[in-house]
Amino acid sequence: MDGKKILLLLCINVISFLVSASSRSHACAAESGGKCSDSGEWKGEFFPGIPKIKYEGPHSQNPLAYRWYNAEEVIFGRKMKDWLRFSVAFWHTFCGTGADPFGAPTKYWPWEDGTNSVAMAKRRMRANFEFINKLGIDRWCFHDRDIAPEGKTIQETNSNLDEVVKLAKELQGDNIRPLWGTAQLFMHPRYMHGGCTSSELGVYVYAAAQVKKAMEVTHYLGGENYVFWGGREGYQTLLNTDMEFELDHMARFLEAAVAYKKKIGFKGTLLIEPKPQEPTKHQYDWDAATTTNFLRRYGLVGEFKLNIECNHATLSGHSCHHDVETARINGLLGNIDANSGDPQTGWDTDQFLTDIGEATMIMLSVIKNGGLEPGGLNFDAKLRRESTDVEDMFIAHIVGMDTLARGLRNAAKLIEDGSLSELTHQRYASFDNELGALIEAGKANFEMLEKKAIEWGEPKVASAKQELAEMIFQSFL
Amino acid sequence: MDGKKILLLLCINVISFLVSASSRSHACAAESGGKCSDSGEWKGEFFPGIPKIKYEGPHSQNPLAYRWYNAEEVIFGRKMKDWLRFSVAFWHTFCGTGADPFGAPTKYWPWEDGTNSVAMAKRRMRANFEFINKLGIDRWCFHDRDIAPEGKTIQETNSNLDEVVKLAKELQGDNIRPLWGTAQLFMHPRYMHGGCTSSELGVYVYAAAQVKKAMEVTHYLGGENYVFWGGREGYQTLLNTDMEFELDHMARFLEAAVAYKKKIGFKGTLLIEPKPQEPTKHQYDWDAATTTNFLRRYGLVGEFKLNIECNHATLSGHSCHHDVETARINGLLGNIDANSGDPQTGWDTDQFLTDIGEATMIMLSVIKNGGLEPGGLNFDAKLRRESTDVEDMFIAHIVGMDTLARGLRNAAKLIEDGSLSELTHQRYASFDNELGALIEAGKANFEMLEKKAIEWGEPKVASAKQELAEMIFQSFL
Amino acid sequence: MDGKKILLLLCINVISFLVSASSRSHACAAESGGKCSDSGEWKGEFFPGIPKIKYEGPHSQNPLAYRWYNAEEVIFGRKMKDWLRFSVAFWHTFCGTGADPFGAPTKYWPWEDGTNSVAMAKRRMRANFEFINKLGIDRWCFHDRDIAPEGKTIQETNSNLDEVVKLAKELQGDNIRPLWGTAQLFMHPRYMHGGCTSSELGVYVYAAAQVKKAMEVTHYLGGENYVFWGGREGYQTLLNTDMEFELDHMARFLEAAVAYKKKIGFKGTLLIEPKPQEPTKHQYDWDAATTTNFLRRYGLVGEFKLNIECNHATLSGHSCHHDVETARINGLLGNIDANSGDPQTGWDTDQFLTDIGEATMIMLSVIKNGGLEPGGLNFDAKLRRESTDVEDMFIAHIVGMDTLARGLRNAAKLIEDGSLSELTHQRYASFDNELGALIEAGKANFEMLEKKAIEWGEPKVASAKQELAEMIFQSFL
Amino acid sequence: MDGKKILLLLCINVISFLVSASSRSHACAAESGGKCSDSGEWKGEFFPGIPKIKYEGPHSQNPLAYRWYNAEEVIFGRKMKDWLRFSVAFWHTFCGTGADPFGAPTKYWPWEDGTNSVAMAKRRMRANFEFINKLGIDRWCFHDRDIAPEGKTIQETNSNLDEVVKLAKELQGDNIRPLWGTAQLFMHPRYMHGGCTSSELGVYVYAAAQVKKAMEVTHYLGGENYVFWGGREGYQTLLNTDMEFELDHMARFLEAAVAYKKKIGFKGTLLIEPKPQEPTKHQYDWDAATTTNFLRRYGLVGEFKLNIECNHATLSGHSCHHDVETARINGLLGNIDANSGDPQTGWDTDQFLTDIGEATMIMLSVIKNGGLEPGGLNFDAKLRRESTDVEDMFIAHIVGMDTLARGLRNAAKLIEDGSLSELTHQRYASFDNELGALIEAGKANFEMLEKKAIEWGEPKVASAKQELAEMIFQSFL
Repeated sequence: MDGKKILLLLCINVISFLVSASSRSHACAAESGGKCSDSGEWKGEFFPGIPKIKYEGPHSQNPLAYRWYNAEEVIFGRKMKDWLRFSVAFWHTFCGTGADPFGAPTKYWPWEDGTNSVAMAKRRMRANFEFINKLGIDRWCFHDRDIAPEGKTIQETNSNLDEVVKLAKELQGDNIRPLWGTAQLFMHPRYMHGGCTSSELGVYVYAAAQVKKAMEVTHYLGGENYVFWGGREGYQTLLNTDMEFELDHMARFLEAAVAYKKKIGFKGTLLIEPKPQEPTKHQYDWDAATTTNFLRRYGLVGEFKLNIECNHATLSGHSCHHDVETARINGLLGNIDANSGDPQTGWDTDQFLTDIGEATMIMLSVIKNGGLEPGGLNFDAKLRRESTDVEDMFIAHIVGMDTLARGLRNAAKLIEDGSLSELTHQRYASFDNELGALIEAGKANFEMLEKKAIEWGEPKVASAKQELAEMIFQSFL
Repeated sequence: MDGKKILLLLCINVISFLVSASSRSHACAAESGGKCSDSGEWKGEFFPGIPKIKYEGPHSQNPLAYRWYNAEEVIFGRKMKDWLRFSVAFWHTFCGTGADPFGAPTKYWPWEDGTNSVAMAKRRMRANFEFINKLGIDRWCFHDRDIAPEGKTIQETNSNLDEVVKLAKELQGDNIRPLWGTAQLFMHPRYMHGGCTSSELGVYVYAAAQVKKAMEVTHYLGGENYVFWGGREGYQTLLNTDMEFELDHMARFLEAAVAYKKKIGFKGTLLIEPKPQEPTKHQYDWDAATTTNFLRRYGLVGEFKLNIECNHATLSGHSCHHDVETARINGLLGNIDANSGDPQTGWDTDQFLTDIGEATMIMLSVIKNGGLEPGGLNFDAKLRRESTDVEDMFIAHIVGMDTLARGLRNAAKLIEDGSLSELTHQRYASFDNELGALIEAGKANFEMLEKKAIEWGEPKVASAKQELAEMIFQSFL
Repeated sequence: MDGKKILLLLCINVISFLVSASSRSHACAAESGGKCSDSGEWKGEFFPGIPKIKYEGPHSQNPLAYRWYNAEEVIFGRKMKDWLRFSVAFWHTFCGTGADPFGAPTKYWPWEDGTNSVAMAKRRMRANFEFINKLGIDRWCFHDRDIAPEGKTIQETNSNLDEVVKLAKELQGDNIRPLWGTAQLFMHPRYMHGGCTSSELGVYVYAAAQVKKAMEVTHYLGGENYVFWGGREGYQTLLNTDMEFELDHMARFLEAAVAYKKKIGFKGTLLIEPKPQEPTKHQYDWDAATTTNFLRRYGLVGEFKLNIECNHATLSGHSCHHDVETARINGLLGNIDANSGDPQTGWDTDQFLTDIGEATMIMLSVIKNGGLEPGGLNFDAKLRRESTDVEDMFIAHIVGMDTLARGLRNAAKLIEDGSLSELTHQRYASFDNELGALIEAGKANFEMLEKKAIEWGEPKVASAKQELAEMIFQSFL
Repeated sequence: MDGKKILLLLCINVISFLVSASSRSHACAAESGGKCSDSGEWKGEFFPGIPKIKYEGPHSQNPLAYRWYNAEEVIFGRKMKDWLRFSVAFWHTFCGTGADPFGAPTKYWPWEDGTNSVAMAKRRMRANFEFINKLGIDRWCFHDRDIAPEGKTIQETNSNLDEVVKLAKELQGDNIRPLWGTAQLFMHPRYMHGGCTSSELGVYVYAAAQVKKAMEVTHYLGGENYVFWGGREGYQTLLNTDMEFELDHMARFLEAAVAYKKKIGFKGTLLIEPKPQEPTKHQYDWDAATTTNFLRRYGLVGEFKLNIECNHATLSGHSCHHDVETARINGLLGNIDANSGDPQTGWDTDQFLTDIGEATMIMLSVIKNGGLEPGGLNFDAKLRRESTDVEDMFIAHIVGMDTLARGLRNAAKLIEDGSLSELTHQRYASFDNELGALIEAGKANFEMLEKKAIEWGEPKVASAKQELAEMIFQSFL
């Protein structure tokens, strides 16, 4: 390993497991048994023995097959793949090493050589596209620092990025596109006080340069959206923080991003991804409503939508479908990071969603939204630290995809059946009249309403029929 | 007890403990030992033996004295009483019976006769003013249904209310005013699906009539603010709920309230009080940011401010001072319900605040806000269920007042000392230059910033000095 | 209403909604349209139009039919009804009025007359048995104070209880039995500091008298178990509490209960029901492990088992199946209160369980335990406050029963398939050898193990295959 | 950097920040400006400019002085230092780098050279003792892997450890001792399924070898206690876990540890440190009660005590003082890890305690326990990630020490005053008679008690005076 190279490993969530030649072979060193060519390039498949994953139906017992996801099958006039628009998250899947605050990395993927070199980055990118192709997915998501190593200067960093991105573009071919790209403004120590909300001018400036490049790269790759997740745009304590100053800076920064997007002709949606806390005690984009308030306050509503992550929603005290619906009714549902947390833990576990009921609720919202396009469902989810087989990467994605596909099927049947929405509709039927219309038009003042109240006396109030609603819902799971 | 009277007891949080003559005397029945005149009126003091509470200084060991609250003492050019603007919450203090979901009432105040009659309501009101006067407080808060019993019709209910309110006005005299009034739209079963967000037209109409009257009454009494707490404006499950429909209705209702306020010439502030949940699974006014988003969405920002309750803030996952600051920097800090929750319980415990550090943080925000006027600090706090002595009512308020007074003194000293704010200010000092000014003026685009980033190279990032900030803060407690 | 009667309404969780003749007829007054005989007795069915609920299979769209629960169907050599041993909870179903800390009662069952008289108690009991019979269930649970009103003296209270219990025994007939009975030691204000852990000697004494009678009554009715839920056996603050003193008292009290059980020849199991908090800030029987520690400390393990309630488990930070398994492996799984909480709320919502996955996990434990007999699955669950139709009572129980029946079916298939348990078994296979046996026999000391460790070098560690386990599990839902 | 060296960095909580010569000098390379001798040894002080910290009293404004901790001052017949028995936690203070799940390290202590060599370990140890001496503390705590790097084999690892430990012993001199030592069984990937509860035999064996050595080393250094924190002794999901099997293994392992302790003549206390979760979803030593249950079940109570960590207690849903008191009344309070969490975050923030009230509660328990000896108060707390100045290490410890010293002073005054304990005592006074004594002796059966209950009628129940207790408590803060 070059003593001159910065080993700062900036893959999200992980700091790679560095091992020497003595404990673990470099992937393409001489002893690696036929995986590498003479020139050190990886030969053959990254996932030998893993076939292209196919739909085999609900009764399949093959863990490497889809039971519910049948990409080309048409539901409500649209292919499943077009409703679901799945995306692989590069960082968790190819940079995730299993490290946690109490543990070192546990994953030793055979193609990793323990370096964070450009060569390694390119090999990892090839593995990514083989993985995506084998799953039969058309989309992926990335942070700039996941896919290429940071150099000693911005120029060197950008040049590293360009080299890897060029390869990615080739590997994408005609069918694959980034669902979104983003800049990682939280892992490097320079961002410890935030990126655009940092107390340091130099960091604000640096963050701008980084986002500028990440937007360019996303545009170059044909990305459909661009995401802002402000992991450190928040505070640890109000004792040393000027919250208003920081929020103003965040707004100025996002305005500049909008301007730059327009300048370069990027047509994708800009998305903000709420999260309540972790790593900071308070993150400014706490949840969908808080983020929407920010956008409204600073006149940015027309320029941004939201990327709702299920585990972030539950950490903020909401159900996932609550935050999805909040985004939807504010006209801001742009994308969903389809993962799940553990209901009894207070941190982001980023598990693959396996709850069929939750998936059904999410897909009900997606259908109500007329789909998510140009957004989609990104697997911002990671293997458990203790899942260390290469096949686990596939199994995790398959169960995640099947869960949402099953959710889509259930949601479609629920809508077709109509009894659940009819139950809801009936609850509000008393407003279907002239007075209801006046109220909704803002023309019913208190004097008029008081007169009615006195005339009518005690109102009738019907049962909300929650248990019946639950029964109907459950019968479609 | 009149067999014809509806015994629905609509004091917030409690359903009164009904006891018969055999187990408990009516307060003014013959056997009550001198407390009642021949005509059944209460004679003499409600709190005999409790003197007017005086300031005795920090070394006092008298539980019926203030150690820190010295009403007339001037701090930063303003009397303590004008910074603190304390208010007694009628519902907890005079309607709270100690009932909880697993327990019947525990409080038997001597003046209660087990009825919910107008006569009882008036007696309770007299007790309230004796209490307020003995504490030396100038403000009180009420829900319409706390202070007078509901009748069989709206007209009868309003007439009951008028009778009690007339007495209250007399008892207020020249010095005492409502900090705020409000309508109770959550206790009666008609409001089980909400008030203005109910699925029933008749309930929306009824709620309008009730709010109309409550606003009139607050105005009549010289109230300084009017509050909306939408305890049931929310949902139990999205399975049977049309969230957007309900939010639209809430907006229409509040618009009508604004119009009516103007019509009657009420000059007080309209306040919304956020709470995340309980009784509903999700309350629409979740927290300060969510409520602000609602106000912005529906163009209501100029017409409303927020009433931040500490225990509600912590239930929503924030510190109290976070939500106070969020309201403040959105220009919406109108009032504070000064109470506290238990950090380990997941429901509203409404305890009197006794944490000196929290009180200091709150008062720092209040001072930054230039005070709260026409808002104040309302004790939306209740005696523990197990505190059943009349003197406990005083002790609880005294410790709550002293805690905030101590917080005010600490905050003033912290500001005078200046080292904590200097620490914060220094953190952001790198922006005090031309580029910082350009950024803040929205004139620094990404190209310009990238050029700077390349020129400057890796930015310096200073320590946030959190532990030092905590040390300074603690040294003033 | 008789001025001499104590109106203290001690049905758990609720304080009844008292209404006068003018707003609501006494159930058997003249105007009640044929529901009452001349003598004021209820005539005919309580649930007219509701048939006996039958199994119609998964495709039924009839809300008043079972889709999954087929009582006589045999699974693993046992009838479904013998695996599930369902029980109706009298308090929620017949005393629940929909009151909550912010709301008055909402339920007006037609048979209620607004009194808490013995006559009313007997009418309610008849409704209970019609309900149980229509559901086709064989068990019910009760608190002493649910089923009969408290009198002015212990003797009068016991006599009221005897009168109602006599009727219950008749109505039980040959098939129906109490799954368990219990004494309510938390609703009456005398128990505000606890029952057996009260700071007042008189209360300890009173609680003993009450439990004595409740045990007698449970025995008389052929109850299979007797439960202790110590809702107020805990503290609100340690500032005024001697925790050790109180725990000692709890132990003494339970010892006396054991002695009395033996004396009267009651053969049922004594059960303790853990709950972490609410109404108290800390309840001594926090969770399964805490309660087991208590039993061990005081030498009571052989005499008690646990009644695990799902919502209590989740409030204590565990999954329901965790606490069920903790009880099971301590040999203490006696009964399950089958309900569910909301994952985002911090209080006991006592919802009917509708989560199929959770039900499957619970039933896996039940099967591992060889069933629960003489315990069972008690629906300690209540209608939502907003569910006010009589048929909602049935719908809620049906969906709860179906969920657990579906869980049983899934669990049985999972066990039959064997692949999930095989996956787990394989994880531990490395211990299936001589050294493993030595370790498990307590014969492997550190010196011996160190020698092995040096000999073996770095151990191999296999993937935990969590996602595969989740995939297998989900495929049986 | 030597390509042959394993760079696995096993300092708890962190993975070191590896930097090359170009970005950061090796601490003792030529360019480091006088800090290193020719031989690469560190010269002079590690903390130049930081004096020995002295007591200057409450009015000091010097951040590098004690305001409340006056080591030799006598309180209740014992020196403050003997009540408090402070200890520095080597891992947080000297291995903590500021890394978190979303961020790379942020701390660049000048003595670090970016390696994990034995030479670096020894330099770090020298810094540790200079730090301890400057604070005027006599104790420190360590994990085996904090203080010396893991080698390629157990033998090499142990030899590394021996070399560093020898130096530590020298540096300890006559006054300093380990409060406790422990083995780190959670960071290395071999422990991903646990140490003694791993599903792999080889790991159990390896863990035994590691604990054996760690016990030897602790004994050699004169350690006063030895701690087990089972960070990965737990599970991620019950779907693939045999909980009973794992608990049995944990018991066998601890039995072997007890045997080995006796064999080598180690007289220190064995301590178990509870934590509910994180990194696992469920940790077997959930809280004090759960751990006590485990010890009782396996007959280990006499051999172990508990090490209560405040932040772990709050994560388990308890206040810190609750778990301290639970340990105390079970006779198991052995040590306290004095830190604090954020009340609104769901993970272990390990902050220095700055809450005066909490510190006072803790010290009340410590005094009731007659002190903690041979245990003490260990600062298992870390600098915030954003605190990057060397002086922050001192400031954090000073404010932590001062907080507990202030807590001790307050607790002593509270006890001296006596009114709070008198209030508590009076609450239970009704048991101070013959019947109370019979009950407490287990001689009061239900028949006897029922007779009394009937004789006495309705019991009197006094106010719990919680607000008064809070007022008294607060007046001593």
